[in-house]
Amino acid sequence: MDIPALQHQLRQFADERDWQQFHSPKNLAIALSVEAAELLERFQWLTDEQSRRLAETPPDYEAVRQEMADVLIYLLRLADQLGVDLEPAVRDKMRQNAEKYPVQLAKGNATKYNRR
Amino acid sequence: MDIPALQHQLRQFADERDWQQFHSPKNLAIALSVEAAELLERFQWLTDEQSRRLAETPPDYEAVRQEMADVLIYLLRLADQLGVDLEPAVRDKMRQNAEKYPVQLAKGNATKYNRR
Amino acid sequence: MDIPALQHQLRQFADERDWQQFHSPKNLAIALSVEAAELLERFQWLTDEQSRRLAETPPDYEAVRQEMADVLIYLLRLADQLGVDLEPAVRDKMRQNAEKYPVQLAKGNATKYNRR
Amino acid sequence: MDIPALQHQLRQFADERDWQQFHSPKNLAIALSVEAAELLERFQWLTDEQSRRLAETPPDYEAVRQEMADVLIYLLRLADQLGVDLEPAVRDKMRQNAEKYPVQLAKGNATKYNRR
Repeated sequence: MDIPALQHQLRQFADERDWQQFHSPKNLAIALSVEAAELLERFQWLTDEQSRRLAETPPDYEAVRQEMADVLIYLLRLADQLGVDLEPAVRDKMRQNAEKYPVQLAKGNATKYNRR
Repeated sequence: MDIPALQHQLRQFADERDWQQFHSPKNLAIALSVEAAELLERFQWLTDEQSRRLAETPPDYEAVRQEMADVLIYLLRLADQLGVDLEPAVRDKMRQNAEKYPVQLAKGNATKYNRR
Repeated sequence: MDIPALQHQLRQFADERDWQQFHSPKNLAIALSVEAAELLERFQWLTDEQSRRLAETPPDYEAVRQEMADVLIYLLRLADQLGVDLEPAVRDKMRQNAEKYPVQLAKGNATKYNRR
Repeated sequence: MDIPALQHQLRQFADERDWQQFHSPKNLAIALSVEAAELLERFQWLTDEQSRRLAETPPDYEAVRQEMADVLIYLLRLADQLGVDLEPAVRDKMRQNAEKYPVQLAKGNATKYNRR
């Protein structure tokens, strides 16, 4: 995925509409959170099993696909406004997670999931 | 960003820890929404202006960067579990937004933002 | 529950600490949403069945009880700042729901839940 | 507000529609979080100042009032399903907050708000 190219297009889209004034990092974080909830709403009354078979219901699947796009769009906008480079951020976090949840311990008692 | 490579590593990480059982699309959508709220929490008492200057406070900036990584990690996992290809999903959504908010109308009265 | 008395105490608490400046309805709505996500976090990796037996794990139950209190505290603050009377608001909504989901239809095919 | 009476009515409403099966604490926590995000959505592009003057725009004010009712309805349902008594939970939390944020310290440097 060519993130800089997408961010450039999204920035241009906001510029052309004079929407930069609304796109403070705070407002973008709100929008991202609202979109994540709209995505979650699509799953709220499904069982786990039904959620795993979502692709069997094309209209619901398409709706979820669009909500995922909305989440990513606001994440790209926020990263652009703050100057955060997403790929190294994800790689750093994956390294931290590998240290925090070593296979032996995590597999043995799945602390993260049992704790709650 | 090489999304398939990252998704492969994240899947392997979950597999090694026997976490696939917890990673139903429903649970991943919950986790994504929780992470988005943790990201928002970092901005909650800031003014818009303070949020635009976040980079001036390195510890807060680093915390936000990590929360953004968490959001993206769960989005990549969810896309992987559902078989959603994120880049075309974003491009489709951008096309829809361009039709929904034509420059002339959106700039003139910013309907989207004034409506609320 | 004596809502006006609680709201009076919460307002006084904010006044004494000069926090009214932070408690715009927008910021309170953010805080409420963040607290709701913290509550949800407590359930995120549980099965439905485990969530129904939460009371069997006293520390988790107590944590959930406290998160519920946080949600209600911000809802009371928001209602106070906006001058919304919560009890009639709930009664109005319950009346609307009764019209929207008549027993015969809702029971027969549970449209609300099947739709998603 | 007569909480037990409202909870009784809400429980009856769910019973009549065979919705208890969907109302696990986990699902109710999801629903609460989704409703909190719908409430937040109403404020997302407003300035703090505009949010303080919401009552001047009756349709927006009414929409916010309804979203607040939805949040409270799911909170009451969740409390009922878990057997949590909300009023003492709020009073306990208020006592904890008073200890955590003593007036002198909180007023002097507003740690809670400056920290972020």
